[in-house]
Amino acid sequence: MAATAAIRGTLQDRSDRAAFPPPDVSARPVDRAAWIAAFRTVRDETERRAAPLSPEDQQIQSMADASPTKWHRAHTTWFFEQFLLRDHLPGFRLYDERLHYLFNSYYVAAGPRQPRIMRGLITRPTAEEVAGYRAHVDRAVEGLLSEASDETLDALLPILEIGLYHEQQHQELLITDILHAFAQNPLAPVYDEAWRFPRSQAKAGLAELAGGVTRIGHDGNGFSFDNESPRHETLILPCAIDKGLVTNAQWLAFIEDGGYARPELWLSDGWLAVQAEGWEAPGYWQRNEAGQWSVMTLAGRMGIDLSLPVTHVSYFEADAYARWAGRDLPTEFEWEAAANDGLLDDAFGLVWQWTRSAYVSYPGYRPVSGALGEYNGKFMSNQFVLRGSSVATSEGHARIGYRNFFYPHQRWQFTGLRLSNYRD
Amino acid sequence: MAATAAIRGTLQDRSDRAAFPPPDVSARPVDRAAWIAAFRTVRDETERRAAPLSPEDQQIQSMADASPTKWHRAHTTWFFEQFLLRDHLPGFRLYDERLHYLFNSYYVAAGPRQPRIMRGLITRPTAEEVAGYRAHVDRAVEGLLSEASDETLDALLPILEIGLYHEQQHQELLITDILHAFAQNPLAPVYDEAWRFPRSQAKAGLAELAGGVTRIGHDGNGFSFDNESPRHETLILPCAIDKGLVTNAQWLAFIEDGGYARPELWLSDGWLAVQAEGWEAPGYWQRNEAGQWSVMTLAGRMGIDLSLPVTHVSYFEADAYARWAGRDLPTEFEWEAAANDGLLDDAFGLVWQWTRSAYVSYPGYRPVSGALGEYNGKFMSNQFVLRGSSVATSEGHARIGYRNFFYPHQRWQFTGLRLSNYRD
Amino acid sequence: MAATAAIRGTLQDRSDRAAFPPPDVSARPVDRAAWIAAFRTVRDETERRAAPLSPEDQQIQSMADASPTKWHRAHTTWFFEQFLLRDHLPGFRLYDERLHYLFNSYYVAAGPRQPRIMRGLITRPTAEEVAGYRAHVDRAVEGLLSEASDETLDALLPILEIGLYHEQQHQELLITDILHAFAQNPLAPVYDEAWRFPRSQAKAGLAELAGGVTRIGHDGNGFSFDNESPRHETLILPCAIDKGLVTNAQWLAFIEDGGYARPELWLSDGWLAVQAEGWEAPGYWQRNEAGQWSVMTLAGRMGIDLSLPVTHVSYFEADAYARWAGRDLPTEFEWEAAANDGLLDDAFGLVWQWTRSAYVSYPGYRPVSGALGEYNGKFMSNQFVLRGSSVATSEGHARIGYRNFFYPHQRWQFTGLRLSNYRD
Amino acid sequence: MAATAAIRGTLQDRSDRAAFPPPDVSARPVDRAAWIAAFRTVRDETERRAAPLSPEDQQIQSMADASPTKWHRAHTTWFFEQFLLRDHLPGFRLYDERLHYLFNSYYVAAGPRQPRIMRGLITRPTAEEVAGYRAHVDRAVEGLLSEASDETLDALLPILEIGLYHEQQHQELLITDILHAFAQNPLAPVYDEAWRFPRSQAKAGLAELAGGVTRIGHDGNGFSFDNESPRHETLILPCAIDKGLVTNAQWLAFIEDGGYARPELWLSDGWLAVQAEGWEAPGYWQRNEAGQWSVMTLAGRMGIDLSLPVTHVSYFEADAYARWAGRDLPTEFEWEAAANDGLLDDAFGLVWQWTRSAYVSYPGYRPVSGALGEYNGKFMSNQFVLRGSSVATSEGHARIGYRNFFYPHQRWQFTGLRLSNYRD
Repeated sequence: MAATAAIRGTLQDRSDRAAFPPPDVSARPVDRAAWIAAFRTVRDETERRAAPLSPEDQQIQSMADASPTKWHRAHTTWFFEQFLLRDHLPGFRLYDERLHYLFNSYYVAAGPRQPRIMRGLITRPTAEEVAGYRAHVDRAVEGLLSEASDETLDALLPILEIGLYHEQQHQELLITDILHAFAQNPLAPVYDEAWRFPRSQAKAGLAELAGGVTRIGHDGNGFSFDNESPRHETLILPCAIDKGLVTNAQWLAFIEDGGYARPELWLSDGWLAVQAEGWEAPGYWQRNEAGQWSVMTLAGRMGIDLSLPVTHVSYFEADAYARWAGRDLPTEFEWEAAANDGLLDDAFGLVWQWTRSAYVSYPGYRPVSGALGEYNGKFMSNQFVLRGSSVATSEGHARIGYRNFFYPHQRWQFTGLRLSNYRD
Repeated sequence: MAATAAIRGTLQDRSDRAAFPPPDVSARPVDRAAWIAAFRTVRDETERRAAPLSPEDQQIQSMADASPTKWHRAHTTWFFEQFLLRDHLPGFRLYDERLHYLFNSYYVAAGPRQPRIMRGLITRPTAEEVAGYRAHVDRAVEGLLSEASDETLDALLPILEIGLYHEQQHQELLITDILHAFAQNPLAPVYDEAWRFPRSQAKAGLAELAGGVTRIGHDGNGFSFDNESPRHETLILPCAIDKGLVTNAQWLAFIEDGGYARPELWLSDGWLAVQAEGWEAPGYWQRNEAGQWSVMTLAGRMGIDLSLPVTHVSYFEADAYARWAGRDLPTEFEWEAAANDGLLDDAFGLVWQWTRSAYVSYPGYRPVSGALGEYNGKFMSNQFVLRGSSVATSEGHARIGYRNFFYPHQRWQFTGLRLSNYRD
Repeated sequence: MAATAAIRGTLQDRSDRAAFPPPDVSARPVDRAAWIAAFRTVRDETERRAAPLSPEDQQIQSMADASPTKWHRAHTTWFFEQFLLRDHLPGFRLYDERLHYLFNSYYVAAGPRQPRIMRGLITRPTAEEVAGYRAHVDRAVEGLLSEASDETLDALLPILEIGLYHEQQHQELLITDILHAFAQNPLAPVYDEAWRFPRSQAKAGLAELAGGVTRIGHDGNGFSFDNESPRHETLILPCAIDKGLVTNAQWLAFIEDGGYARPELWLSDGWLAVQAEGWEAPGYWQRNEAGQWSVMTLAGRMGIDLSLPVTHVSYFEADAYARWAGRDLPTEFEWEAAANDGLLDDAFGLVWQWTRSAYVSYPGYRPVSGALGEYNGKFMSNQFVLRGSSVATSEGHARIGYRNFFYPHQRWQFTGLRLSNYRD
Repeated sequence: MAATAAIRGTLQDRSDRAAFPPPDVSARPVDRAAWIAAFRTVRDETERRAAPLSPEDQQIQSMADASPTKWHRAHTTWFFEQFLLRDHLPGFRLYDERLHYLFNSYYVAAGPRQPRIMRGLITRPTAEEVAGYRAHVDRAVEGLLSEASDETLDALLPILEIGLYHEQQHQELLITDILHAFAQNPLAPVYDEAWRFPRSQAKAGLAELAGGVTRIGHDGNGFSFDNESPRHETLILPCAIDKGLVTNAQWLAFIEDGGYARPELWLSDGWLAVQAEGWEAPGYWQRNEAGQWSVMTLAGRMGIDLSLPVTHVSYFEADAYARWAGRDLPTEFEWEAAANDGLLDDAFGLVWQWTRSAYVSYPGYRPVSGALGEYNGKFMSNQFVLRGSSVATSEGHARIGYRNFFYPHQRWQFTGLRLSNYRD
């Protein structure tokens, strides 16, 4: 059943695994078939994730940070139309010029756009009409990839590549946004009955990191986002990082020790968030009258599995937990160095891991010019870096050098933590 | 085409017109067939109004004052289940107990309920599942009406009757809410391509009202809401009321005379609304770069028809217009007395008419006990009375004594005005 | 001691009582000395009320609805400078043109003004400098009254008269605003140690009102505000009004019967206010850990005196109380008719009495033209009428026809209630 | 005249300069006289800064981030009473227990406290009464310093020392808060007529920083705040830093090039701030109708001096300026390394300098236990580090390793910037 496999599939053997990531963008001659296969793989995955959702499900925006499924499907399509077809397809015509306004996101340079908070109010085009838009653009892109001159391909492939990774980012958001939407419904709708959080593969204990000057950032092989550059040296201090992630069992101990009621454990802004939001546990947790905890998941509301990694915790919570435990969150560089050395278990595919590194630019970073320059750099304030990847991350998307980032109060993503400490 | 006739139908000859209103609730023997026909007429009209709308359209709540179409369809069904079936149907079982929470509206006494502002977040049940809920309750109600004992009918008919009028109120809201939702979409979706605002039947000039002590309120014949009682005497002062409504042409003169830019014309709270909302014209009006006005309608965005009555104006705007014109809005009692004397044209079926009467209780009013007592009385502060009915009002719903009420800043209903003045 | 007598004085025999109200504005020849005496009486009373307050006390604005003492003192002075001296004093020069901007209140027609919410941020001029401003304007006004031609006096006296009543209104606000400010301070500062709420003079029982057509509004003798006109006929229905006011003892019974926890007793907007504001008792009431109630007064925090009239209740509370008691609030016309017949005890000098009349215009009302036309008419929405006067009302200010008005959620004034009911 | 010299004095030769900083806290035997002299110097400086202010000036809180002068004077006194006298003075009694609640700031562990936003509402105690509180605590502290046993001194001196630096921090806030308050007053009050912004001493050009592993943080000599530790190694990349600060002339070029109107220059959250706050220039700048800029200063509103360093710019503005200039802000470590090497002009005494380092803890940082542990660590999210010191910083307070921090939207401090860039 399509719905059942929608998310789990990303963690399983799949026949199309080979199709993504695509070839290196600079490899010549260009393997057009491989690029088309990669394009189809990504485009299909979006539709596969949306398939279990009714037109109503795809319509709503349950908070300002989230977007409707339909919007994700249309916006990722708009991206290819706006940045790929418009400039490179001979005789290009917009599929529907009114969609341009509706499905731009935050690219100020690409023109005016629907206010973010009103994305949920656009009932037309319908989900079905968006399918038509997607099919039209898919045909056009595939045609272009087949028939473009080599020169056009040179210009086009970098755009195509970023468009594919961009769409994968929205695939993850699609899942976390619909989980948030479903969590608002007292009926606790089920996205996929068969879905289960994957089990940890972690060994116990600490991984020792010797420290020293090390190179951080993208080494130039394969795709990366601009915020992973320039590659540069940094000094790692000797420290030890947990091989595994903090678990629900550990988090319950924190709760039961009054973790959410002791201001001395919290950052000042974190304590304000605790009070304003009434946090008493991770996101989507509820305690029934008998005192038993449950959590809203993609398979509906379920009991807490103590052995799983804790997730849906904000940076503020991760930081408070580390303080309570008398330990640290690693920096993003410590994480990257440890991952490069193969020291971390469960680094990928379970939960994004908060680091104590604020999201700022690497030394000498300059955004690319034009609208695509708005991609990453303009968010470099007030957010923290997360490393790894999550259960909702698309196949082929994760990398050791990948820098994810969210505001410290946000917790609707699959976000967790691992601890570390410095050696005396 | 079903969609085309959805709203216009309410203003046309219809074969089922005879079915509503139902017989007098106290008529004996009870004409069960007539009651069933009335029930079917009302229930069908709701579905007819929803028919042109996609599942996506039916899902959204475009502002706190509005509700989703799907919610209107379910809530009116809940009303019959909660107040009629639960108490009178032998062997009654809730169709789905979770719907009870979701589709209660403001009846505090009927238990906890989904916060109003979150109505748009309930994607499940789907629009189709709500259709199943409606069909189930329809069958149960019709069965009950056929088979109930005379004694049960005695208890049941007053509930049934108020349920029918209640559903008609939601039929009007369904239309005004979807118009508001569509107005948020830059694509200006069309509810019914063939829809046109009905033309005025008014004669020019003033109707003279002699004044004197007169009886106001419901005389006991036929249905009325509790806020129309007790019937009581009041003193009407000699005055003159316009036979017709203020038109778009007249309103344009107000705009062009700086009506929206002159604070001396406005109530203090009205001027705050003008500034906070950026009002420069009635609701849904837009001026293009060439200076031409258009208005969002059920048939999409259209040019302004100068001969039509102005609509989508708030009380604040109606009051400012009257001050600009050197005239008054009538009181609700002057309106009722003039209507009783047959002096008003266009009293019904075009736009609700703001009066300068604040919505307060009639002398000696006491709400009925129980949850249905929350129906009208608890809104008796900060609102103004409107009289007449609008193009969106359901067939058979309007009455001379009917007291509609909205907050003075609200304008998403079909609200307009007629002017009056006192004789010196 | 000056401070001690500041407020109590308004309720006592005073040697200057004869000086206010001033002569009839149309009496000729003009008794210049009497007008000067009235002017001095009012101006002195403002300073007497401010005398117990430190410069710090006079500086602050404790909420948007309140104003600093210093602002009241300066604004009432600005009123005479703006509307009296500017137009009628030969060789007039503004005392300080920068004060014009600072101390205008809401007279849009009189030019731009300091945003209301920022009144508390103006530390310069100091309280002492405002005293200088007052003295300067006092001298100018008194000189003008002594020396103006008869013709100038004709134009000037109506302005002077409204200026005096205007300043008395601010005298009442000065007291209620400083009480609110002091109530925010955990130290519960004392305005006047000797102050005590005056005792009720009410007899028990109901006053019967026969009903019938009666004349309401100002009869043309003596001063009135424009909102008391035009005088007009209205129909009073037969009813009975309590001779006395609702007491603290009665209110405690309402509290103990769950009055603040039963939504069915409240208007819908009232219940929202109860929840948003956390109301559990009248304004300034606090319950200590032993369960004993105290109330913040002008003499500091004191125990509840059960025999006194309840005060600092909003319209929403008054309405809920009446519903709980199974009775009504009188209309403003019933109140006025009963007061005209001498049927009410404690009508004046204790607490303003909420009526169930929304504040709207009398039939045919038109505001006067110019800036003074903004005085009353522009507030005619969303407020309710109170009748009588309070312990903080200035000597000579109260009248049977006086229409005070506040929003239904406001309760920092000395506001209470008396009940009534209709005869069957 | 005392007022005139209030601020300028901090930049001039002063006879008491020797009194601060005090001796090293671990020097033995303890030089009691030197500690008393340091205490008096700091305490007197607070009063000297408050001296030009009226009771009204000292009362108000012009925004949530600011505090009243009176509050600064009382809170710094409370600090010595709470943390020094309470634990170490035999027979200690609180001066007034009610002040404990009023003048606690954010020390959650020290008990409940007046909500920050309501600090401006406390009119009693008066400014004069706060002077009495200060004098009382001064006598007690000086007596304790004279007479305490050596053992008590051991425990006491670290508290005394942090209390002195704490009070100096409030001295700076006192100045920036009153400037903000005065800027709200259209009369633009003058704090000190003779005040002038000090002139730059900078040479032109770039200072080259060779890079390499370097030690950062407090070396253990003299006082430091806990956030300057642990001292640790970090890697500095080769870069060049401007010897001087960005000037008003340069900032005007940014404005004239559309700096405040080009979203591509701004961080996403920065652009939201530009739009929400209507920023068109640095804080306190105004353009008159002739297009000329002025700026609110401690000497009132004055013309822009092009040669002075720009100040009252937020991090968002500093970042946008750097992007516009094609350069970087230095990291806090680059700044510290350059300052240690003597490469920077105007490092101290003009404006705090934004760095592009988010304010996070040094590796292995742990806050001290108890209430004083709340001092710095709990603010380590969402803020950026500033280095150097400003014209308002107290004598003896600045250090190369000092880490100041503010939110990126804040600009009421004397905040400016210097630029840098990496070597290719």
